[in-house]
Amino acid sequence: MKLTSLYRTQKIRNFLQECGLDAWIAWRPDEVLMMSGQLPYWGASVLLWAERFEPILFLPAVEPRDHIPDGLRVYEYPWGSLECSDPFSVLIEAILLELRTARVELSRVGMLRNASRTSPSIQAAEQTPIPDAFQRQLSAMTAAPDAAMQEGFLRLYLTKSPEEIAAIRMANQVAAVGIQAFHEAARLGLTEAEVAATAEWAISRQIGTGNIFYARGWAAVQSGPNSADGGRYNRSTGRKLENGDLILLELATCVNGYWSDLTRMAVVGTAKPELQRILSVVREAQELAVAAVRPGIRAGEIDAIARDTIARHGFSAYFNHGTGHHVGFRYHDPGFGIVPGETERLKHGMIITVEPGVYVSEFGGGARIEDNVLVTESGSEVLSRESTLPGRKRDASCDQY
Amino acid sequence: MKLTSLYRTQKIRNFLQECGLDAWIAWRPDEVLMMSGQLPYWGASVLLWAERFEPILFLPAVEPRDHIPDGLRVYEYPWGSLECSDPFSVLIEAILLELRTARVELSRVGMLRNASRTSPSIQAAEQTPIPDAFQRQLSAMTAAPDAAMQEGFLRLYLTKSPEEIAAIRMANQVAAVGIQAFHEAARLGLTEAEVAATAEWAISRQIGTGNIFYARGWAAVQSGPNSADGGRYNRSTGRKLENGDLILLELATCVNGYWSDLTRMAVVGTAKPELQRILSVVREAQELAVAAVRPGIRAGEIDAIARDTIARHGFSAYFNHGTGHHVGFRYHDPGFGIVPGETERLKHGMIITVEPGVYVSEFGGGARIEDNVLVTESGSEVLSRESTLPGRKRDASCDQY
Repeated sequence: MKLTSLYRTQKIRNFLQECGLDAWIAWRPDEVLMMSGQLPYWGASVLLWAERFEPILFLPAVEPRDHIPDGLRVYEYPWGSLECSDPFSVLIEAILLELRTARVELSRVGMLRNASRTSPSIQAAEQTPIPDAFQRQLSAMTAAPDAAMQEGFLRLYLTKSPEEIAAIRMANQVAAVGIQAFHEAARLGLTEAEVAATAEWAISRQIGTGNIFYARGWAAVQSGPNSADGGRYNRSTGRKLENGDLILLELATCVNGYWSDLTRMAVVGTAKPELQRILSVVREAQELAVAAVRPGIRAGEIDAIARDTIARHGFSAYFNHGTGHHVGFRYHDPGFGIVPGETERLKHGMIITVEPGVYVSEFGGGARIEDNVLVTESGSEVLSRESTLPGRKRDASCDQY
Repeated sequence: MKLTSLYRTQKIRNFLQECGLDAWIAWRPDEVLMMSGQLPYWGASVLLWAERFEPILFLPAVEPRDHIPDGLRVYEYPWGSLECSDPFSVLIEAILLELRTARVELSRVGMLRNASRTSPSIQAAEQTPIPDAFQRQLSAMTAAPDAAMQEGFLRLYLTKSPEEIAAIRMANQVAAVGIQAFHEAARLGLTEAEVAATAEWAISRQIGTGNIFYARGWAAVQSGPNSADGGRYNRSTGRKLENGDLILLELATCVNGYWSDLTRMAVVGTAKPELQRILSVVREAQELAVAAVRPGIRAGEIDAIARDTIARHGFSAYFNHGTGHHVGFRYHDPGFGIVPGETERLKHGMIITVEPGVYVSEFGGGARIEDNVLVTESGSEVLSRESTLPGRKRDASCDQY
């Protein structure tokens, strides 16, 4: 699959032109993915994107080579080689040589140093191995990024190309397999950790089906009173599921580098009326907010629809987070939030989460429902409705949300 | 469990004294863990360690509070709060106020900026959310780290306290559960991804047993010809296990923040003689290298024992990586490698991996065996021998390494 589409190329070109730049150096995993379609294995891939030549992907010597997108020139550098103790010096020399050869002025090359919140690489048990010294050395030579440049770059994440939308749709389809496993596993007496482990298991084993070369889920299951913490953090404990529990599943899913971020609820047995009320309020708020998604609407309006619905039912103090965020290149994409007062407008090609929640410790429970919603030309499309997926059907023996 | 033991406190104190420092600001997840025993949930915890006052742990408003080590003053800052758009400014002000109050000169406060290769936080689907601007602002005010300071700080990782050794031992015991699941799952017709998913599942569901509040495995299974790539990268594909395959499991395991890094082999059916030979050469090299681990030996000598054994059997060109590295606070701890020519000596309290491998594409297979070995006062102890774990026994129906 060639993901560096004309759409993406044009967006990058416009951004560089607006900032007076001729080239960009990308090194964060999600940045490399967004600009080239390559999902780094080791997290040490560096992309040199220039107007005057085909983008160059600098790859570690030990990187797998079977999922490199078309349209890139690949340059190997000795990261991971036993013989080379300083691969980043070699890499910097190689980058400078390419720029010199193409007569690109360093003052017209941009890059961002911020390492925070980037997506993990495939080998995700450690953060990206690209050292600060590399970023420091290069950013001292290249254009100093001003606020406009940084903001312009992050706007590249906001709208997705048709190919990227297809990839994010697939991440949601794989997530649906994990959600089905969650609903099947959420039974009396199992621990939260056991249920979460099963959802992750169902996702990882999809590798090799279709064109999925990488799939990983991060599931957290919170049951009963633990679900009341669901608005602050999500994690699984050894607590066993009990009759009447609300069960919250928070699920991040990465497929070939593209992300889905979903929340589902289940009930074991029969929940107390006040917990059922929370569930129905959250469902109402979520459905109304999703229904309002369309091009031109302000993000703050979507938030207000969810927040006002929850307030109308008397729970305004119990919805302690925003209604959503952009999603797709990361678990949480950069860009404006779906939060109170946000005046930015939704546009065709954006993908946002819609995830209101109500968490009431006094009731011993909390609930959130979260979908990933694509803004289409005329309205919206929910990418994460499991019931619409081929071959999936709902399990009638257990309440599912 | 109180992990900021006297041992660790003394080490930190000595380091600060040697560098002429009075305080240290830690923000990377593995650094916070090493200095305080706290495993960040969100990755946004910051530790202020000073001579003149009890260490202060700055925690996000939305951080769980039930696994905070003793002996720390906890200060909440508004990360994750819907009301605060700039929590890091609040955090910086709070840090500066504490330092001013205790009359600590900023020129005697140290910190490292390098974000690379830090361990993931519990919420590991994204890298640490602490932005570059925070690090830049603080590091501009504090002491400029010279090479001695950086090196001195990283030496803090090298030897482990008794409490830390116990925690790393537990990570290895949990990993053993994953390894047993791998050996049970590695059967004809299953895909690599299915087998890897099962090993990870077995690890995550240990949460809640004993005092395990967090457990996660990153497993990669390479079978048949794919195992010949095991020296360059480790990942699982949709390839189905076939008769005669070598099966390589690379397994990172994190338990409560402490790491194990292991490799195990299995054979499906009967392997060709040349593949059996690879296996037996790797086993011989690994056992000889492990047997040599003791205080005072140079790291390069351990590497040479493994490398010479492999060379003696004619495979020197097929062992393309180092013999090991430090492990425990991360999947790969900082510090000298167990690599050719390394003159640093092992010391009591160090934990290293010993992981020679031989990968021969022409034979259609590769093998590596990896253990985590503690340097004791008089010799060594292998922390990762499953056969020595209570309640585990080897499955005789399948060759296991």
